[in-house]
Amino acid sequence: KVYKIAAIPGDGIGVDITEAAVKVLDKLAETNGTFSFTYTTFDWSSKAYLQRGYYMPDDWATQLRAHDAIYFGAVGWPDVPDHISLWQMILPIRQQMNQYVNVRPTRILRGTRAPVSQLQEKPGDLDWIIVRENSEGEYAGQGGTTHGHAENAVATELAIFTRVGIERIMRFAFETAKARPRRKLTMVTKSNAQRHGMVLWDRVFYEVAKEYEGVVEHDKMLVDAMTVRMVNKPESMDTIVATNLHADILSDLAAALAGSIGIAPSSNLDPTRKNPSMFEPIHGSAPDIAGQGIANPVGAFWSAAEMVRWLGEGELDTVADQLMQAIENVTGEPKTRTRDMGGSAGTEEVTEAVCAEIGRV
Amino acid sequence: KVYKIAAIPGDGIGVDITEAAVKVLDKLAETNGTFSFTYTTFDWSSKAYLQRGYYMPDDWATQLRAHDAIYFGAVGWPDVPDHISLWQMILPIRQQMNQYVNVRPTRILRGTRAPVSQLQEKPGDLDWIIVRENSEGEYAGQGGTTHGHAENAVATELAIFTRVGIERIMRFAFETAKARPRRKLTMVTKSNAQRHGMVLWDRVFYEVAKEYEGVVEHDKMLVDAMTVRMVNKPESMDTIVATNLHADILSDLAAALAGSIGIAPSSNLDPTRKNPSMFEPIHGSAPDIAGQGIANPVGAFWSAAEMVRWLGEGELDTVADQLMQAIENVTGEPKTRTRDMGGSAGTEEVTEAVCAEIGRV
Ligand SMILES: CC(C)[C@H](C(=O)O)[C@@H](O)C(=O)O
Ligand SMILES: CC(C)[C@H](C(=O)O)[C@@H](O)C(=O)O
Repeated sequence: KVYKIAAIPGDGIGVDITEAAVKVLDKLAETNGTFSFTYTTFDWSSKAYLQRGYYMPDDWATQLRAHDAIYFGAVGWPDVPDHISLWQMILPIRQQMNQYVNVRPTRILRGTRAPVSQLQEKPGDLDWIIVRENSEGEYAGQGGTTHGHAENAVATELAIFTRVGIERIMRFAFETAKARPRRKLTMVTKSNAQRHGMVLWDRVFYEVAKEYEGVVEHDKMLVDAMTVRMVNKPESMDTIVATNLHADILSDLAAALAGSIGIAPSSNLDPTRKNPSMFEPIHGSAPDIAGQGIANPVGAFWSAAEMVRWLGEGELDTVADQLMQAIENVTGEPKTRTRDMGGSAGTEEVTEAVCAEIGRV
Repeated sequence: KVYKIAAIPGDGIGVDITEAAVKVLDKLAETNGTFSFTYTTFDWSSKAYLQRGYYMPDDWATQLRAHDAIYFGAVGWPDVPDHISLWQMILPIRQQMNQYVNVRPTRILRGTRAPVSQLQEKPGDLDWIIVRENSEGEYAGQGGTTHGHAENAVATELAIFTRVGIERIMRFAFETAKARPRRKLTMVTKSNAQRHGMVLWDRVFYEVAKEYEGVVEHDKMLVDAMTVRMVNKPESMDTIVATNLHADILSDLAAALAGSIGIAPSSNLDPTRKNPSMFEPIHGSAPDIAGQGIANPVGAFWSAAEMVRWLGEGELDTVADQLMQAIENVTGEPKTRTRDMGGSAGTEEVTEAVCAEIGRV
């Protein structure tokens, strides 16, 4: 089986880590011999935008749909206002490819030093899957500005929640929780202060929860209090479901608690499989270290593992596990850790080490 | 000078800690002899609401305005949906009393055990003032629901940002930063994804920043990345300014990193002084431990110290410092710490210990 991958390296370290991920994916295919990848690399980036005035051509959606999956590096560059770069590429892809779920697993990989002392002693206490609503809510994109430069300027952001949108993410979250040993789902909300959209969010959660009565345990947290619980009682949670913005914030915090934002993966999924899903590390383009060959490719590799898992539809789980095993063998070794993990290895060294491990495990 | 305080104990442990704060305030006045407090205690609570159908009477604003300050315990009780309790009391008070600033200082009090190991070694690395916009943004209260119980239900939350609202909070934040030794302000935003309101937020920030060129150093963080920086580089920040929702989330995280949500204070200020300002610990009503006499009153005492500072307009700073000193002498002693701080003392014991210290320091 040949999988067609649309590769969008994007900006900054997105380029370095996409290159690294491709090497690792090819090595994985070669070692297993039952599948392979072909790549179309798209030069959709801030640099291209500055030259030609657009990130993606008009037929971008058609081009992407000719692939089985999208591998995304990072987008964002100091020369372009962030709200332009994001709304011309990553956010339209998530929305139009119907990638309404963003899955963000977090756990403490071997060799990672967690900043919280409880987790230094018991790294296993942190093992979460954050299920992020990825299509609406605070990222609906509506709102506007009146009297922009005048004294009476008013600007709005309209968060939109639909029953359809909430129900499908809740169902996905409950199914995710159900498939894990602990069968536990924590729902995050801010319905005490946000009394319209978030109240619907809560209501649909409890409706769907009824279908999982006795099967999946559930509880509810306010987003502010949730940060406290993540720091103090990591072991009390397993699967977490939250809105687009809340989960964006909580997943960065989760990555920090797990030791580095450089290791965290994300999967933007269209569960209907009618459109290609997209896989990207959660870190950004990191202009400060771009082009220096020192970016941590582990988040990119973990994202690649999730891509393999998704593409295989159950058939390639052992291959994905093999990649995760190779990654942890490498992070477990001090000399093949990047700077953010307390080592001094470069992107290439880590990549070669992972490729070598793939041949071994 | 006699200061008239409107005391609103509210729900759950709000009652315990307000009682404790009053004792400490009276002791402080008695010891100093130059000022005193009189209290009007309002029974505005969820219990009262369930009996009579409202939290506050129609003329609540007039009643509150007859006071120099408001001392608030906590609101929220399982029997009443949170969005009702909050929108019938705390949020209208903040908005109508023009308390457009919410100041949340955070540092690691003596005797507190921070969960992050860097902070266990160097507690001084965390010393922040979070300046929270307290009147608009995501808490504007607008939005609504259409087709509430049908398949096509849609609910919205409208975040509203005004230039006037942004400018005044930015000015307050820069002034706060300027008065601190490090003169450093970090502005938090999510203008990459939220391209209307948050873009205005950024623009006004940079405008106001020009007035402080060379006086206050400033930088900008995305709210998601901010959580990572708070965990990993606490020493790199001093004063922080953020929207109503972002600061709500970040201040809970800050309190957790500082060792306990039970110690964190907040001041809801009307800087024009036309309306009474309101002082409240940031913790909630904690139904699980309410009425057991074990709530940590430290956040309440710290809030009381901030109230004294505010009321004194510069004249009572040493008195506020005296209270803070007394608090830290008490938290410094293992036997007068509450459970959340690793001890086993009750609310009353801690209160008596602080009163005794006030007489001594
Ligand atoms: C780049 C940005 C739009 C994005 C987001 O906010 O979703 C990023 O922070 C992420 O977490 O994927
Ligand atoms: C009680 C609630 C409305 C409140 C808020 O969200 O502002 C609380 O979390 C706080 O931080 O003061």
